[in-house]
Amino acid sequence: MKFPSPVSLQWLAGFINAELKGDLNGMATGINEIHRVENGDLVFVDHPKYYNKCVQSAASYIIINKEVEVPAGKALLIVEQPFEAYTKIVQHFRPFEPATKLISDTAAIGEHTQVFPNVFIGNHVTIGSNCIIYPHVSIMDHCVIGNNVIIQAGTVIGSDAFYYNTKKDREVWYRKMLSCGRVVIEDDVEIGAGCTIDRGVTHDTRIGRGTKMDNLIQIGHDTVIGKNCLFAAQVGIAGGTTIGDGVVLWGQVGVSKTLSVGDHAVVLAQSGVPHSLAGGKTYFGSPAEEAKQKMKELVWIKRIPELWKQGKEREKEGEDE
Amino acid sequence: MKFPSPVSLQWLAGFINAELKGDLNGMATGINEIHRVENGDLVFVDHPKYYNKCVQSAASYIIINKEVEVPAGKALLIVEQPFEAYTKIVQHFRPFEPATKLISDTAAIGEHTQVFPNVFIGNHVTIGSNCIIYPHVSIMDHCVIGNNVIIQAGTVIGSDAFYYNTKKDREVWYRKMLSCGRVVIEDDVEIGAGCTIDRGVTHDTRIGRGTKMDNLIQIGHDTVIGKNCLFAAQVGIAGGTTIGDGVVLWGQVGVSKTLSVGDHAVVLAQSGVPHSLAGGKTYFGSPAEEAKQKMKELVWIKRIPELWKQGKEREKEGEDE
Amino acid sequence: MKFPSPVSLQWLAGFINAELKGDLNGMATGINEIHRVENGDLVFVDHPKYYNKCVQSAASYIIINKEVEVPAGKALLIVEQPFEAYTKIVQHFRPFEPATKLISDTAAIGEHTQVFPNVFIGNHVTIGSNCIIYPHVSIMDHCVIGNNVIIQAGTVIGSDAFYYNTKKDREVWYRKMLSCGRVVIEDDVEIGAGCTIDRGVTHDTRIGRGTKMDNLIQIGHDTVIGKNCLFAAQVGIAGGTTIGDGVVLWGQVGVSKTLSVGDHAVVLAQSGVPHSLAGGKTYFGSPAEEAKQKMKELVWIKRIPELWKQGKEREKEGEDE
Repeated sequence: MKFPSPVSLQWLAGFINAELKGDLNGMATGINEIHRVENGDLVFVDHPKYYNKCVQSAASYIIINKEVEVPAGKALLIVEQPFEAYTKIVQHFRPFEPATKLISDTAAIGEHTQVFPNVFIGNHVTIGSNCIIYPHVSIMDHCVIGNNVIIQAGTVIGSDAFYYNTKKDREVWYRKMLSCGRVVIEDDVEIGAGCTIDRGVTHDTRIGRGTKMDNLIQIGHDTVIGKNCLFAAQVGIAGGTTIGDGVVLWGQVGVSKTLSVGDHAVVLAQSGVPHSLAGGKTYFGSPAEEAKQKMKELVWIKRIPELWKQGKEREKEGEDE
Repeated sequence: MKFPSPVSLQWLAGFINAELKGDLNGMATGINEIHRVENGDLVFVDHPKYYNKCVQSAASYIIINKEVEVPAGKALLIVEQPFEAYTKIVQHFRPFEPATKLISDTAAIGEHTQVFPNVFIGNHVTIGSNCIIYPHVSIMDHCVIGNNVIIQAGTVIGSDAFYYNTKKDREVWYRKMLSCGRVVIEDDVEIGAGCTIDRGVTHDTRIGRGTKMDNLIQIGHDTVIGKNCLFAAQVGIAGGTTIGDGVVLWGQVGVSKTLSVGDHAVVLAQSGVPHSLAGGKTYFGSPAEEAKQKMKELVWIKRIPELWKQGKEREKEGEDE
Repeated sequence: MKFPSPVSLQWLAGFINAELKGDLNGMATGINEIHRVENGDLVFVDHPKYYNKCVQSAASYIIINKEVEVPAGKALLIVEQPFEAYTKIVQHFRPFEPATKLISDTAAIGEHTQVFPNVFIGNHVTIGSNCIIYPHVSIMDHCVIGNNVIIQAGTVIGSDAFYYNTKKDREVWYRKMLSCGRVVIEDDVEIGAGCTIDRGVTHDTRIGRGTKMDNLIQIGHDTVIGKNCLFAAQVGIAGGTTIGDGVVLWGQVGVSKTLSVGDHAVVLAQSGVPHSLAGGKTYFGSPAEEAKQKMKELVWIKRIPELWKQGKEREKEGEDE
């Protein structure tokens, strides 16, 4: 998330009650989680295992629970509870805005767009022209919908990321990382009924132009999907994954988090994708492999009894010798 | 889709600006996609690969982008863009009707049927008597619900088919095939929460009498399901498939498109069905096979290390000889 | 389900027109299905196969279609149709209450809880403080939500159990077992968008404190989930299952009914769990096994062609000898 305008480190240090070390005159331009930080951003870290990753990242300013060395031009904001400090800043710049109406006064809806009864459209949502939004769809705060988009009934755009700060030495292990990112849906996208598309934690979840999704599909936070993809029903894609252009995922395929699937890849029904896949090929299985290889394997498995029989015969011959 | 009354080919040719060849005095009784055409119907074809299939189909009148030979009594309507012409005709006879209320004035609801708050009931919907329709259910235009039907919260009946005209030489590859079919739900059916049942493209999606479906189930367009079936949660059935009577599908089973599953078949949890299955048997696996065969295979796989060891011993014996 | 106060067997026998045998002065304290009966409860049985199980169960009073011997202190209520008699009693003590408003007058909602527009909250529902309930959520009658609970859009809490009385010699095979149990969600639970959590048939479905669930997850009736669990999207858990504390289920995992998964078990994505799992271990596959074992098996499968080749060479050597 970028701040509306740069914010002085001095003010931030006061706001979260932090000790400031390093570049004391810095101005932070935004706050992001570690996978998405850019130059000028704040980030937080609360475990020594990740100190170095954070210090070496693009982030300029690090909310941390211990003094460590930083390169010139960077700064530390030292607090006891970095996660809670991060949350406090995010809440300040992206406060929870209650919804009092089904369609927010701050939502902008384009010409010739049909919004059915009982659609929820949150604060600061933008919807383009010539769209059809069917009943019981929820479009949460700050999401952006392009032109000629069709969303079938009951779908949720912009639910919170499934992303938690974990500490197993407290009563409640998982604490919610606030989602202040958006969902951006480009032109000519169609989304089926009963789908759920999570907003980014600090950036955007994005569905590329012309992509068509069937029913009951799950798209995780910060996942970026290319153009002209085709996803059959009940596909699930975890967070932070990148899907290329023209990718086809058949029914009930699952794709794990923070990986990439290359352009024009095809993944057959019920496959599970635990690692990145090169484009232009067809995959099958859980874990997914190239389909022609996997199909051969299924044939080989059926030959095991014959192998067993050969072994037994050979053993018998051995005894007879 | 049948037209309200037969429509002259001459008028149709004028409407879509087509050159008419063959039986010039024909009257079209309806328009359907190729899997569902009947005598008297219009159909469209835009790829030479399918010309012959369309000409030889039950369709009487073919919207096509090239002159081909046709049997006597049939006619061609030649246009540059057959898909767009098809869409124009469908839109004319089944125009988009905006919904202005949660329950349409043209919906008919039977006696003793309980409709919870926040249910959407579209235009020309019929619901029988003694039904319970829970909150946030959407029943889209033209769908038909029988008597004693229970639909749990959040379910969508009559979402659009996931069915596209594909051309990869344009910016947006997939163009929506308009869904003008219906969903027909027979008496004594129960449908769980969060399910999605797509309407037929030009015909009906049908759920047979007494069938019970758990939550988060997907039923594709034009799929026909028999009587007294039992589907556990998260089952997905693709489009154009026929399921017999008394079929049991356990949790997360996926069934592919345009195939058939025979009466009283049982498919165990998480199985994937890529081809038609004979009735009266139990299946397991992805791809699904007869369960007892598949279970044996799982045992054989566990014997591979023993086979390997035997091979090694045999090799050693060979060296010792 | 417990009755508001104990009910005399004499009255019950008259109400369902039953012949009473055994302890004629008994007072029933509740009515439950066979998996959940306690001392003082009524239960029903209509198949000789289960007579003995019911008579030997904790239930004190048995609605049955034949006279059998019972231990002292128990009683039989003999009727021709035990299931229908059971249903009549349940309906009397838990009558269908129509909903006329989005938020029932009998619902209690705690301080600082944000309820978005278009949330359905049924009769006798209790919601704690500091919760956020997003749009199009349905919380059905009698459910209980703790404090600091977040429920994303479109989720259904308290849909009916998928639980039927089956007789294949009638036109409609499956008759609905009425669900009179509840869903109880403890403090600090978060539930994603588009989830479905069924109420118990006669007892509670329960989600333990601090558990976090992603989108499109199905939880069956009477299932009890521990504290600090983490379930990724599209997980499905069938009815009557017990999940321990700190259990992690990755995306699209399916867990079968009436089994148990031990504390701190981890089940990798797309696995299927057909039997109980010990805690503290990691599992993979469908059917699920210990992941390290399953991973080895996947490597062994890839060695089958080599085994085949060795067998062929050996055969050739044999011929050469």
